[in-house]
Amino acid sequence: MFDPIKAIIDFTAHASVSADPEAKGGINGAVGFLKDLFEKEMGLDVKVVETPGHPVVIAKRGGDPAWPHVVVYGHYDVQPADPLEEWHTPPFEALVKGDEMFGRGVADDKGPVMVHIAALARLLERRSDLPLRVTFIVEGEEEIGSVNLAAVMRAHKAELSGDFLLMSDTTGLGRDDESITTGLRGISALEVRLQGPRQDLHSGFHGGAVMNPVRALVALCASLHDADGRVNIPGFYDDVVAPQDWEREEMDRLGRDPEDYRKLLGVPELCPPPDFDVFESRCFGPTLEFNGISGGYQGHGSKTIIPAKASAKISCRLVPNQDSFRILDLLEKTLRERCPKGVTMEIERHHGGDPYLVLPPHKSGEDADTAKGRAFKAADEAIREQFGSAPHYLREGGSVPILSDIRRILGLDALMLSVALQDCNMHSPNEKLDLIVFERCSKVSERILEAVADGV
Amino acid sequence: MFDPIKAIIDFTAHASVSADPEAKGGINGAVGFLKDLFEKEMGLDVKVVETPGHPVVIAKRGGDPAWPHVVVYGHYDVQPADPLEEWHTPPFEALVKGDEMFGRGVADDKGPVMVHIAALARLLERRSDLPLRVTFIVEGEEEIGSVNLAAVMRAHKAELSGDFLLMSDTTGLGRDDESITTGLRGISALEVRLQGPRQDLHSGFHGGAVMNPVRALVALCASLHDADGRVNIPGFYDDVVAPQDWEREEMDRLGRDPEDYRKLLGVPELCPPPDFDVFESRCFGPTLEFNGISGGYQGHGSKTIIPAKASAKISCRLVPNQDSFRILDLLEKTLRERCPKGVTMEIERHHGGDPYLVLPPHKSGEDADTAKGRAFKAADEAIREQFGSAPHYLREGGSVPILSDIRRILGLDALMLSVALQDCNMHSPNEKLDLIVFERCSKVSERILEAVADGV
Repeated sequence: MFDPIKAIIDFTAHASVSADPEAKGGINGAVGFLKDLFEKEMGLDVKVVETPGHPVVIAKRGGDPAWPHVVVYGHYDVQPADPLEEWHTPPFEALVKGDEMFGRGVADDKGPVMVHIAALARLLERRSDLPLRVTFIVEGEEEIGSVNLAAVMRAHKAELSGDFLLMSDTTGLGRDDESITTGLRGISALEVRLQGPRQDLHSGFHGGAVMNPVRALVALCASLHDADGRVNIPGFYDDVVAPQDWEREEMDRLGRDPEDYRKLLGVPELCPPPDFDVFESRCFGPTLEFNGISGGYQGHGSKTIIPAKASAKISCRLVPNQDSFRILDLLEKTLRERCPKGVTMEIERHHGGDPYLVLPPHKSGEDADTAKGRAFKAADEAIREQFGSAPHYLREGGSVPILSDIRRILGLDALMLSVALQDCNMHSPNEKLDLIVFERCSKVSERILEAVADGV
Repeated sequence: MFDPIKAIIDFTAHASVSADPEAKGGINGAVGFLKDLFEKEMGLDVKVVETPGHPVVIAKRGGDPAWPHVVVYGHYDVQPADPLEEWHTPPFEALVKGDEMFGRGVADDKGPVMVHIAALARLLERRSDLPLRVTFIVEGEEEIGSVNLAAVMRAHKAELSGDFLLMSDTTGLGRDDESITTGLRGISALEVRLQGPRQDLHSGFHGGAVMNPVRALVALCASLHDADGRVNIPGFYDDVVAPQDWEREEMDRLGRDPEDYRKLLGVPELCPPPDFDVFESRCFGPTLEFNGISGGYQGHGSKTIIPAKASAKISCRLVPNQDSFRILDLLEKTLRERCPKGVTMEIERHHGGDPYLVLPPHKSGEDADTAKGRAFKAADEAIREQFGSAPHYLREGGSVPILSDIRRILGLDALMLSVALQDCNMHSPNEKLDLIVFERCSKVSERILEAVADGV
């Protein structure tokens, strides 16, 4: 009998911190743990694919090529545990207290990936002849940008193509409110740097004769929004798709109070742009944000200089069907066209990713008589049963760039079942996993796999 | 026979760095040097006025109250000598090479103040019965904002009142181009800080719902100039007095090439505001400059946050008759009125000072039959004789806030004779004094004092 709690504890003991060059032992330990689990306990075919970074574990339950094929995604790497002194328990010794388990990675993503491992293990215990192919892809670089996963997927494209992707790496609402994530925002980011004089100038001797690069930068940056708060870049909204009515209703159904949210953030006023309310603006609308700005004297008091340079870091959150490269092109073009005289401009593009949307076929009107359609329908029914209420189909405001790669390279849409909760301290000390949610989700996953296998 | 070169060398040996709390010995040494020089070599009455900071030396040649009274200003404190490794000679061992002397303070302001000490000493050697009262005020805090001088002037107002102020602490054009500084810009400075959310936010989870403080700041700052580059603060230009035609002609007479200046600064284009050419804009026009701007992530690459705060340091250079407090009020009022919603604003006012203008009576049409009028006329004639060409009457773009205090408290206008040159490395390593200029200026000063004494 597969014991998922013991498995998560054993998995957590390997400090697989992908960002830490000293953590090779933890990485190898986690890979070895997965290999043994998939191979020895579950009888799957395991391949450890080496990369220039950390290995990708591919574990396959094969079978008749006519059987449906579910691909499951997860990651075994975790965030660093610092600051250690703020943990109440040792981060790599997962500890169960009541209905919660504490430890680094239990919520992101070792616990959530175990939801689906346990589901398959239990299903195979019951039905060893299940007519279903399942392939797990568990990578070790999610926390550092999934830098090598796309290349691995391209190299193993044939064996990784399937019907849909099942995964749990987004966050849910609470123990009695299960959600399925239907969308994520994309991102386009760059840094713009303006150079005025060769070096900082005395503002008395030279002030008046030259363009101050900070003045040029604030004029440039201020031009990027209109007075109502819309992004003022020609073409920016061209490809934006409005949310469907039922998606807005799903948001309203949550009954959240903007005043509570305002207090939580500590702002004097919430400022959604036109066309969206506060909560809608966080997932249905695109944004342009200044992540940082810098120029001239930063110390105490005053220093009367004209700075030599000034720079701003800008990123846009994108919604379907905005294209991250096109938006970056539009932003760069706009900045170059509006560059004030008297300064020179340099632009550095950063990494980005496309927005992502996957609506449940039985809600959106898409053909539901597919493996993917059956999976969403089974998930809906199982969630009602396990959690006592219908799932919330919600878009999130954050970005998971690898999902677009998976869709582009493997042609797979994702069913994203929330396991971690909003208060799970992901990336922070005392990360925790709700074991009630874990168990309910594992049953939901088991039902999804069985429904897809049985074609019902 | 007074030897000014030896005197400057001895004066320089005292490392009177006012900003350095460890330099008390240098301060005391410089004060003692001045006391001995004024008292023992020249027979003046010396008072060392203690302050909460560094002492002020007041040295007086008294006499018949009916005699004219010239007040001479200077400062004995110097900038720190760092970076020491860039000096070619020890900074506090003044060294003569050819026609130049090298050492910390030789140009700012120990050499220039010695111009007038030497002038009086020589004049008294020739004419011990000269019908003239002269009082030197030599402070020790000019490089740190003259923090205690106003209080000392108020306390000694009666004995410091006189006909005009003679001083040398501005910079000239070259060995054959002597200038008299007729104006300085004032300054108003503040820092504006905007606070949005309590802490930095994830731009994916919250982006759209809140005002980004950097966005608010760039909108606010961009509103402070109009599209032509004029300062866009209601009332800002109300009290600006246009320069007189002859002042503009003085500027033109210098025959400077904007292209040379552009290359010197290394900017792609010079950007004077409307109404002024490049060189005029630096002294006849007021400015609003951003000295620094800061907010959010400043490191390498990108970090997708909405910053909690953003701030900008702003200073205005002011021209006659703008009032530094009124401008600060207007700036603060404008910022508060234009503060975008969704953020809170905090403003910290910094020190400022009023602009300064003193036109030579024989050029401006003012009554020239005064001690001040005779001084300017004597200076004009002596400069033609010593330097071979007429003096340039020029305004400077920088600020010497203490001059407004001297005018307000003591009622004295200043005759500012340039001694240091633009390439003298003031505040930098290898500070130097041109000894030809020094000697010529000392003869000009001697002529000024004698003309005022004789009433011609």
